[in-house]
Amino acid sequence: MPAKAANPLDRMFHPESIAIVGASATNLEGSWVRRLINFGYTGQIYPINPKATEIDGLKAYPSVRDIPGPVDYAIFNIPARLTPQIMADCVAKGVRYVHVFAAGFSEIGTEEGKQTEVRLKQIAKEGGLRVLGPNCMGIYCPASGMTFNPDFPKEKGKVAFVSQSGAESMRLVFLAQDLGIYFSKVISYGNAIDLDAHDFLEYLSGDDETEVIACYIEGLHQGPRFLSAIKRCLQRKPVIVLKAGLTESGAGAAASHTASLAGSKAVWDAFFKQTGAIPASTMDEVADIVQAIQRMVAPKGRRVAIVGRGGGIGVIAADICERAGLKVPPFHPETQKKLLEIIPEAGAGVRNPVETTLGMGGAVDFYRRGLPIVDADPATDVILVHMAIDVYGGHTPDLPQRVTDAADALCEKAKTLRKPLAAALFTGGHADTIMAVVAAREKLTKASIPVFTGVESASRAISKFASYSLAHPQ
Amino acid sequence: MPAKAANPLDRMFHPESIAIVGASATNLEGSWVRRLINFGYTGQIYPINPKATEIDGLKAYPSVRDIPGPVDYAIFNIPARLTPQIMADCVAKGVRYVHVFAAGFSEIGTEEGKQTEVRLKQIAKEGGLRVLGPNCMGIYCPASGMTFNPDFPKEKGKVAFVSQSGAESMRLVFLAQDLGIYFSKVISYGNAIDLDAHDFLEYLSGDDETEVIACYIEGLHQGPRFLSAIKRCLQRKPVIVLKAGLTESGAGAAASHTASLAGSKAVWDAFFKQTGAIPASTMDEVADIVQAIQRMVAPKGRRVAIVGRGGGIGVIAADICERAGLKVPPFHPETQKKLLEIIPEAGAGVRNPVETTLGMGGAVDFYRRGLPIVDADPATDVILVHMAIDVYGGHTPDLPQRVTDAADALCEKAKTLRKPLAAALFTGGHADTIMAVVAAREKLTKASIPVFTGVESASRAISKFASYSLAHPQ
Repeated sequence: MPAKAANPLDRMFHPESIAIVGASATNLEGSWVRRLINFGYTGQIYPINPKATEIDGLKAYPSVRDIPGPVDYAIFNIPARLTPQIMADCVAKGVRYVHVFAAGFSEIGTEEGKQTEVRLKQIAKEGGLRVLGPNCMGIYCPASGMTFNPDFPKEKGKVAFVSQSGAESMRLVFLAQDLGIYFSKVISYGNAIDLDAHDFLEYLSGDDETEVIACYIEGLHQGPRFLSAIKRCLQRKPVIVLKAGLTESGAGAAASHTASLAGSKAVWDAFFKQTGAIPASTMDEVADIVQAIQRMVAPKGRRVAIVGRGGGIGVIAADICERAGLKVPPFHPETQKKLLEIIPEAGAGVRNPVETTLGMGGAVDFYRRGLPIVDADPATDVILVHMAIDVYGGHTPDLPQRVTDAADALCEKAKTLRKPLAAALFTGGHADTIMAVVAAREKLTKASIPVFTGVESASRAISKFASYSLAHPQ
Repeated sequence: MPAKAANPLDRMFHPESIAIVGASATNLEGSWVRRLINFGYTGQIYPINPKATEIDGLKAYPSVRDIPGPVDYAIFNIPARLTPQIMADCVAKGVRYVHVFAAGFSEIGTEEGKQTEVRLKQIAKEGGLRVLGPNCMGIYCPASGMTFNPDFPKEKGKVAFVSQSGAESMRLVFLAQDLGIYFSKVISYGNAIDLDAHDFLEYLSGDDETEVIACYIEGLHQGPRFLSAIKRCLQRKPVIVLKAGLTESGAGAAASHTASLAGSKAVWDAFFKQTGAIPASTMDEVADIVQAIQRMVAPKGRRVAIVGRGGGIGVIAADICERAGLKVPPFHPETQKKLLEIIPEAGAGVRNPVETTLGMGGAVDFYRRGLPIVDADPATDVILVHMAIDVYGGHTPDLPQRVTDAADALCEKAKTLRKPLAAALFTGGHADTIMAVVAAREKLTKASIPVFTGVESASRAISKFASYSLAHPQ
C-alpha cells in the first residue's frame, strides 16, 4: 500500500476504460478511437455511435448507458448543442470524468453558447461528475497511453504542462521533442467549467512522475486558489508560468481567444515576486528554461564564463548576458595566465570572454585543454560555450564535419566539469550545416548539455534558472 | 565624365593592382593570392616574397620596390614587427593604400605592440599613404573581386557594412547570404590608425551602389566626425548601428578585444535619439532590419495585423508585438465581418490576430481568400504572417509538402498586397521539416517577402523599420 492517499485525479490520468462519444464509423484515420489504440492505451475503449455496431474492431454502443462495464473517462467529440443530454447520460451511467473536446460554448460569445455551457456545468455538478473543458484538447499522458495528437512522442518524461491553450500545448510538446525533452502529463483545459488550472497544479505538486511544471495562462477564474496551488508546487519543484495577455494588444487577443480577463501587469508582477514562479514570455523560452533546469547543475551565482570564437561576437555576447541579468566579469588573473599558455596567438582574448584557438581544430582543442581551466576559475559560476564555428567556416564543405567534431569534444569534456554548462548552437541557413547542427544538438542534449539557438536565448534561460536555484538552494 | 568628383576611396575599392606582401610560395590554398584569383579580381596581382620567383603562376618580387608598374593597394600578410620597414618601401614605391592584415599592435597591450603601431602610423602619414588596419580583415567588394574570405558569395548587393570586428563582418555576410541578401562593400577596419569608421561612412553616403548601411562599433577615436558622417548618411539612406559594449560586461570585453573605450550608455542613447540611426543589439537583428528595409513597403504606422493559426499563439504574438513597440488593434468591424464569412468554425479568432482556417489546406486557403481582406483593413498598417503550420502537424510525413504549399500560396498572393508584409517562419528541429523550411524561406525571400525566425525577431525589425520610415517619409 502506498504511504500517501492516492489523489482522485490519478484515475483521470490512468483510466481503466474510456468511452468515445461521437466515434466516427467511417473516418477511422485521425479518430479518437484509432488514436488511443495506436498510442498504446491498454484499457477498455468503448466507441459510442448510435448508427454503428463495430468501430475499428471494437464493439460500438448506441449510448454511454448501454456500456456493460464501468466507465472512468468519456471524451465528447460531438457538437456543443448535444453535450448536455450526453452529460446526463454519463451521470446516469456513473462516468467519473468527462473531457468535452467540443468547442462552441462561452468562448464564441453567443447567448446559445453561454447557456449550453451553464447547463452542462449544472448537470455535471449535480451528478458529481468532474469535467475537463469544454473547448480543449484534453490529456496527453504517455505512461497511460492517452494522447490528443497521434504524432506526439510515446517517450515518458518528467515535465508537466498545464495549458489554457490547445495549440500551445502542441507547440511545447514538439519544441521539447526536438530538444529531447519529454512529458509526464500535458493538460489542455480550455474553458474550465469544473476542473481548472489550480486543480491540476495541486495534483502535480504531489505527482512523483513530475519534476518540473510549466503553465500557460491567459486568465484565471479563481485567483486565490491558483496562487496557493502555485505556492504549494514551488515548495517541491520549479514552476514556469507563461502569463499571456499582459499587454493591451495581448489582453485584447486573450479576450477574443478564451474570453479571459487577462488581469493587470501590476498584479502579475506581484504574483511572480511573491511566489518565485519562473516567468516566461514565449513557448520557446518555456522549453529553454525546462532545458536549463533538467540539464544544468544549479548555478551558484550569476557570473558567466563565455567560451567561443570571435572578439566582437564575445563583446555582443557579454552585452546580451548582462541585459539578461547576468555578469561577465574578468577571469581570476591565474586563470587568464593559464589560458594564455594554451592560446599563444596575438589578439585572442583570455580575459572573459575567452576565444577558442584559431584554425580548424581550434574549438576541439580548446574544449579539451581550455575548459578545465575555465571550470576551475573562481571568478565565474556558469560556462556558456557559443559554438559559432560557422562564422569562421562559412559554407565550406568541411563545416559539417567540424560541427560534429566540436560536439563530440564538448560531450566528452562535459562529463568532467563541475560548473553548470550550456551551449549556444546557431543553426544557420545552409542545408548541409543545418543537418550537422541538428545531429550535434542531439548529441549534446543526450549528453545532458542544454542547447540553445543563440546566446540570447541561452542567457535568458540561465538567468531565470539561476534566480530560481538561488532562491531555492538544495 | 561623371557629374560629381570621384571619391578618392573609390580607387581603394576598385584597385587596378594589388601587391601581396608575405605571399606564401608553399601554402597556396587559402593564400591571399589564390583568394583574389579565384574570386575574380581582374587587376594586376603582385606576390611579394624574397625567396620566390613565381607564385601561383604569377611573377613574384622580392620587394614592393621591385614591382615594375604602379601599385594601388598592398596587403601586409607579415608579422607586426616587419610592417614599418615594408610601409617605408610602400611609401617609396608610391603605393596608394595599404591594408595591414597582421595583428600584434596596440590591441595586444604590450609596449612593443604599441610602439610598432606608432611608427607604422608615422611612416604612412609622412608618406601620404592611406592605411586600413592594422589587425583587420580588410575589404570585401564583389564588384571588384576583392574578398578576405574565399567562401563569401560573388553576388553583388546594395548593403554596405563597416565593422570594427572581423568576425562580425564574416558573420553578417553569411547570415545575410542565408536570407538572400548581398553586399556592395564590407570593410573590417580594425585598429584604424588612419582610415576610420567615419571615412568609410562618408564615402558610403555618396556611393550609388549602396542603399543601406550597417555599422558595428565598439569604440570611437573621433566621435564628432563619426556623428557628422552618420548624419550625412541618414540624409540619403538608412543606417543601422550595432554599438557593442554598452553594458559593464560588454565594455570590459570591448576593452580587451579592440582596446576601445566603449563610452557611456547615456551618450549613445543621445546619439541614437539625435541622429535617427537604427539601433541593433545583435548581428541577427542587423540582418533582420536589413531584410525589412530591403523587402517591405515602408509602414505607414505601427499597427500590425497578425495572421496565423492557434489562439494562444496569437495572444503571445500580440504581447510580443506590443513589447517591441507595435500595436495589435482589433480589425475594423467590416473586416471582422468579412473574415467571419470565410472562417465559419467555432473558436477561430477574427478580431486580430486572425486565425487561418483549420485543417491541412487552412493556411493556403486563407492566404488566397483572407489576406486581401486583411490588406484592405483600415485599422492596421502591416501584415505579419506566422507560418506556424508545424504546430498543427507535428512531425508528420506530409508537413514538408504543406510548408511548400503555404509558401507558394503566400508568394503568389504577396504580389497583390499593398500593405507591407512579413513572414515568421519557425525552423523547427526535425530534419525533413527543416529542409522544407529552408526551401520555403528561399522562395519567400526571392519573392521579396522578408522571413524571420519567429514573431519576436519579426516584430523587432518591423518596429525599427517603422521608426525609421515614419521619421523619413519618402
